[in-house]
Amino acid sequence: MSFNFELKQTDADSLARRGKITTYHGEIETPIFMPVGTQATVKAMTSEELKEIDAEIILGNTYHLYLRPGHELIKEAGGLHKFMNWDRPILTDSGGFQVFSLSDLREIKEEGVYFQSHIDGSKHFISPEKSIEIQNALGSDIVMAFDECPPEPGNYDYVDNSLERTVRWAKRSKDAMSNDKQTLFGIIQGGIFKDLREKSVKMMTDIGFPGYAIGGLSVGEAKDDMLKTLDHTTPLLPKEKPRYLMGVGTPEDLIEGVKRGIDMFDCVMPTRIARHGSVYTSKGRITVRNATYKKDFNPIDTDCDCYVCQNYTRAYIRHLLKRNEILGVRLTTYHNLHFFIDLMKKIKYSIKEGNFLSFRENFYKKYKD
Amino acid sequence: MSFNFELKQTDADSLARRGKITTYHGEIETPIFMPVGTQATVKAMTSEELKEIDAEIILGNTYHLYLRPGHELIKEAGGLHKFMNWDRPILTDSGGFQVFSLSDLREIKEEGVYFQSHIDGSKHFISPEKSIEIQNALGSDIVMAFDECPPEPGNYDYVDNSLERTVRWAKRSKDAMSNDKQTLFGIIQGGIFKDLREKSVKMMTDIGFPGYAIGGLSVGEAKDDMLKTLDHTTPLLPKEKPRYLMGVGTPEDLIEGVKRGIDMFDCVMPTRIARHGSVYTSKGRITVRNATYKKDFNPIDTDCDCYVCQNYTRAYIRHLLKRNEILGVRLTTYHNLHFFIDLMKKIKYSIKEGNFLSFRENFYKKYKD
Repeated sequence: MSFNFELKQTDADSLARRGKITTYHGEIETPIFMPVGTQATVKAMTSEELKEIDAEIILGNTYHLYLRPGHELIKEAGGLHKFMNWDRPILTDSGGFQVFSLSDLREIKEEGVYFQSHIDGSKHFISPEKSIEIQNALGSDIVMAFDECPPEPGNYDYVDNSLERTVRWAKRSKDAMSNDKQTLFGIIQGGIFKDLREKSVKMMTDIGFPGYAIGGLSVGEAKDDMLKTLDHTTPLLPKEKPRYLMGVGTPEDLIEGVKRGIDMFDCVMPTRIARHGSVYTSKGRITVRNATYKKDFNPIDTDCDCYVCQNYTRAYIRHLLKRNEILGVRLTTYHNLHFFIDLMKKIKYSIKEGNFLSFRENFYKKYKD
Repeated sequence: MSFNFELKQTDADSLARRGKITTYHGEIETPIFMPVGTQATVKAMTSEELKEIDAEIILGNTYHLYLRPGHELIKEAGGLHKFMNWDRPILTDSGGFQVFSLSDLREIKEEGVYFQSHIDGSKHFISPEKSIEIQNALGSDIVMAFDECPPEPGNYDYVDNSLERTVRWAKRSKDAMSNDKQTLFGIIQGGIFKDLREKSVKMMTDIGFPGYAIGGLSVGEAKDDMLKTLDHTTPLLPKEKPRYLMGVGTPEDLIEGVKRGIDMFDCVMPTRIARHGSVYTSKGRITVRNATYKKDFNPIDTDCDCYVCQNYTRAYIRHLLKRNEILGVRLTTYHNLHFFIDLMKKIKYSIKEGNFLSFRENFYKKYKD
């Protein structure tokens, strides 16, 4: 077993914590943000650039890679690491989230999900066993159990039935694991209902996993509901296991997640808004594509020491974005990912120094969204 | 005057030559290929990457930069070098070629050209003086005289009248120069007619320029006509001045141009075909986007030592291109520019070693287009 989690420190004034995850492809210092590499590429970035900004782990999407180019091809290439030239840890999701959010005409049965590809309508079936088989072919370090992320987090009966099935699927996912270089995380569901989250935690920890994700949040519920659910759920999880908040979120969400004891995050936000011409700065998010920045010869963020801010101005980046030049999106993407990873570094440091809550307060004083 | 050309060596068996151009922003070893940075960016590349592949000089397009973001804005940014973060030499064209090939409703008068922007139909006027003013604001190292590149290289009377006007415009361009950090090249026209090329050379050298470009080729004429025109024209040009063949060309064109005494080349081909999924290899051009390469886990070119060929496979690059992932175009662009610059390095070395013609022969033995 190549997986380990070491809880190094817990904050005295909050649930924030520092730790170290060891995987087959190396170590990860938590809390950590994982850039998303949906189609075997973190959009617009090379692996070398991801290392430049100190990305320690990235996420790959099972659903997308299964459909194109296909997990067999990636296996033939020597696995996802080799295929995309990334030798640090990779986490793959189970495909569940995309099957339910992207595909057409899905039919959920106890054995798994029948669905049609969102690309060409071709028919497919993914079960817990199939999801593990695909993730095994991809060769990721952390594998997620196949789950349903309920489309309506506020529909009690639906969420209840769904989470019970997700637990049964998690057990089958665990039984299907065969590669001891890979580690399986379970996913807690339960929508925004306290008792259902409790039930999910109880049933999942009874099965037992080396790490737990909290799923079904940041899917349309009110921000307050998300935070309350985290407040309630995270303390129920075993302290000695890593906790991963799936698909979250904004810089504020990362800080609030850490405060509530979360160790791992992923989100497409920094890369997606970069493609739409928006960037994060220490004073908040700005749309550098806007006319306001036409003659602004400052860097995106004067407080930032990334390659982009050291070499390029807002005026130049705006010009590139307006002309649909690839370099524009490259620069905004690079900066935004650097911003997220740098934020996590600062959070880690503040926990280490015992001043996480004052770091949080100072961040909010400057940062206005 | 910061410009100098040193003719270092002439091949014993052909007109090929090696030289060194000195500009305000540094030196260039010739023969040289100049990547094209139309809109203040060599498409998909950072300046840092251009240096990685040893680009010594790039080209900027006056017409595009004049229209967007505007030369005044670039001047305010500190010039094109600073705006785009490129501290090595830049050559700018005069805008003439694009005014004649891209704009709508152009009207050529003795004083200059009235035209409408191809983007929004707005009305503009560019004269030799205006072209020099724009290029002065851009701050390029090598400036091109304002010329007409005749649309029909085979229409004698049109080409004759046009080249005479281009000579008068070249004189006005020279008179308009005011910045001694910049150097003006004259452009030889004359279509595919020997006597008109002779006339153009005579009239342009009578004015006298620190360098001469050969324009009006690679605009639709037969390859044989281009080579014959080069055969005839290049020897007429003063040996002690650099010679620039505008808008050319393929790897074969570069070799044939050098053989005929050309020192400088530019072409959008390597970056343009990269965006369409085609790449150069030592065995010829291939379309790596094609299904043939779906499971080809070799690099683009096993003989290539570039970053892309050291780290990524054809199968991966094909996957990226098929998914319209930015990284796909980044990798093909990087490789193609490296291929061109590397080819010029090999050519330079073969001239130095006195075996250019056998290098040429060996290149063609392997390379099939």
